[in-house]
Amino acid sequence: MADLEGPHFLRPLKAPEENPGRVLRLGVERPLVLDSGKQLSPFNIAYMTYGTLNADKSNAILICHALSGDQFVASRQPVTGKPGWWDEVVGPGRIIDTDRFFVICSNVLGGCMGTTGPGEIDRTTCNSYGLDFPLVTIRDMVRAQTMLVDALGIDQLFCVIGGSMGGMQVLQWVASHPERVFAAMPMATGARHSAQNIAFHEVGRQAIMADPSWHGGDYALHGTVPSKGLAVARMAAHITYLSEPALQRKFGRNLQNREALSFGFDADFQIESYLRHQGMTFVDRFDANSYLYMTRAMDYFDLAADYGGVLAEAFRGAKTRFCLVSFTSDWLFPTVENKRIAHALNAAGANVSFVEIVSDRGHDAFLLHEPELYDTIGGFLSAAAAARNLP
Amino acid sequence: MADLEGPHFLRPLKAPEENPGRVLRLGVERPLVLDSGKQLSPFNIAYMTYGTLNADKSNAILICHALSGDQFVASRQPVTGKPGWWDEVVGPGRIIDTDRFFVICSNVLGGCMGTTGPGEIDRTTCNSYGLDFPLVTIRDMVRAQTMLVDALGIDQLFCVIGGSMGGMQVLQWVASHPERVFAAMPMATGARHSAQNIAFHEVGRQAIMADPSWHGGDYALHGTVPSKGLAVARMAAHITYLSEPALQRKFGRNLQNREALSFGFDADFQIESYLRHQGMTFVDRFDANSYLYMTRAMDYFDLAADYGGVLAEAFRGAKTRFCLVSFTSDWLFPTVENKRIAHALNAAGANVSFVEIVSDRGHDAFLLHEPELYDTIGGFLSAAAAARNLP
Repeated sequence: MADLEGPHFLRPLKAPEENPGRVLRLGVERPLVLDSGKQLSPFNIAYMTYGTLNADKSNAILICHALSGDQFVASRQPVTGKPGWWDEVVGPGRIIDTDRFFVICSNVLGGCMGTTGPGEIDRTTCNSYGLDFPLVTIRDMVRAQTMLVDALGIDQLFCVIGGSMGGMQVLQWVASHPERVFAAMPMATGARHSAQNIAFHEVGRQAIMADPSWHGGDYALHGTVPSKGLAVARMAAHITYLSEPALQRKFGRNLQNREALSFGFDADFQIESYLRHQGMTFVDRFDANSYLYMTRAMDYFDLAADYGGVLAEAFRGAKTRFCLVSFTSDWLFPTVENKRIAHALNAAGANVSFVEIVSDRGHDAFLLHEPELYDTIGGFLSAAAAARNLP
Repeated sequence: MADLEGPHFLRPLKAPEENPGRVLRLGVERPLVLDSGKQLSPFNIAYMTYGTLNADKSNAILICHALSGDQFVASRQPVTGKPGWWDEVVGPGRIIDTDRFFVICSNVLGGCMGTTGPGEIDRTTCNSYGLDFPLVTIRDMVRAQTMLVDALGIDQLFCVIGGSMGGMQVLQWVASHPERVFAAMPMATGARHSAQNIAFHEVGRQAIMADPSWHGGDYALHGTVPSKGLAVARMAAHITYLSEPALQRKFGRNLQNREALSFGFDADFQIESYLRHQGMTFVDRFDANSYLYMTRAMDYFDLAADYGGVLAEAFRGAKTRFCLVSFTSDWLFPTVENKRIAHALNAAGANVSFVEIVSDRGHDAFLLHEPELYDTIGGFLSAAAAARNLP
């Protein structure tokens, strides 16, 4: 297992402008066996760390990113040049204080920011894997993270935290390794993907696959990029991340840089212009096949199914302290789905608190400036740190 | 103005298997002037009638169809071979009793079932209009219907009824011609399209326009059909027609004809298979450009905007009897949007009743077997018929 420092994007979408973090090659001696039965050996995991691991390695916080996130939780994203996606939360003196905690964030398995995924070169064919890359599940993502945490010599994580797909990983961490997670904070998530959620993902996948530039997943081989399909997929998904009231408040029927309707198909309305922008910019920083794999991993997630349909069994015996967070206007992972998790944790006799935050900003609220969320994270970490005898 | 009976599809999607209804050529002497300022002269309107117009022409009910509907409200759809979309409601002895009423339903302007739309041949170029066809608004659709009603010699419609885009037409009918509408029944609709509604439509349009077979709207010229784009558009829209609880109840995470997940991108889940089917079958019966035009007409609809932003002014002085219907699980046109209309009608001193029907079937409930809806329609029509001295 070699620690390959420095830029190591096997197939960068754009030239990274700065160090993309560290990259570990794992699975060399012992392969990563996936839920599909297939194996990865070796594979790379790209990650960032912030702060310093203390002497007894008890202050590590693993942050799990969401579908379109990455390891750049608190540093400039090399492709977009924008601040990290949780820059406001993670850093010295911030809510997740890197003066106190050692923060780890790794690009998920199947991702496109340095961790092995469908865009990587298959050494047997010298081409990108494309759809030959094995399907990965949320549990497989956690398996890869576990190997990273092992490599860092950490037995128990002080906290695992994440929203949306990141929240699914948090739940899976506790289910798979209860003794290795002292505290857990799944936000805006579910223990399963609903029919409506699968439906929206399927629309996005069909949009990508309908793009002739996708070439059955082999677009790297053809030197094309299925930008249009991926942009449409992102546009559809983006609507689900926002709430109807927030869209109405922010955009309403406002026109975009014009006094009157054009009687045509230009972006007359601000909401159209905004969505098109979201689609176009996403294409610059995300890989279409990775998008297929990420959405499929979420669709496949159904934690209770692994425990005879009884979600509480996933958490039986866990001593992990839980804090669940939902947002009132999140219709992708509504409060009721988060409450299902809370009920299961209660049934399993786990230590759980649950906070529903009033916000009209929809699912994306967990990524936005939400003081009540920040207070909740800060309070939970403080109490857990005291219980863990951390300074 | 000639009455061109019999099949008259200028660009049929499939060969119609039976008489597509009557087709009137209108606007010959006096053009139809559209909101865009452009004119149509002449244009065709395809329609169906059921029942018999009484001697004083006081028993006519105009049914306005929704985005993907057509004039075949109560007769076999010639392309699909399926029963009319409201076959259960309209017919002899049914809720809208064609033994009592003379029912008219016309394909909307811009449509693709015989009424002039973007698929029609432009006589100046001998090609399909494509995007050269002028954009039409809900008011333009009503203008065309008004000319049809004139041609049928009907001064006042006994009732105008419709859901979704059809409901928008109902509202526009009363706003434009209050004296010509004795009773009005807009269902599951809004007086404006919301930001979220525009957003979903924009996703659909971008999916169509991203399809290289669309050819800037000139696919007829190229002998292609943008089926994949249109299918994706339909899939995205279809999710918005159903409710999350109904999707969960009907499909949940059930697998489609398999015992286990495939670890691939086939339609593992029933919901995926269902959506793909919805997309594929829609392509057989609907024209992609018409879809663009219909969605744009809905996006542009904002009745209050034509009256200084005060919706009540749209209905000032109207003596029309109103019955509004919404469905509890309709998130496309939620009850709150229907209530906005009710409040405006109250403010205008109009005669209005409002019924919110408990149903988990979402927006599409107005097209489905909903006994409470049927009772509401029947009761409203009976009371209105008594007030109009109809037998």
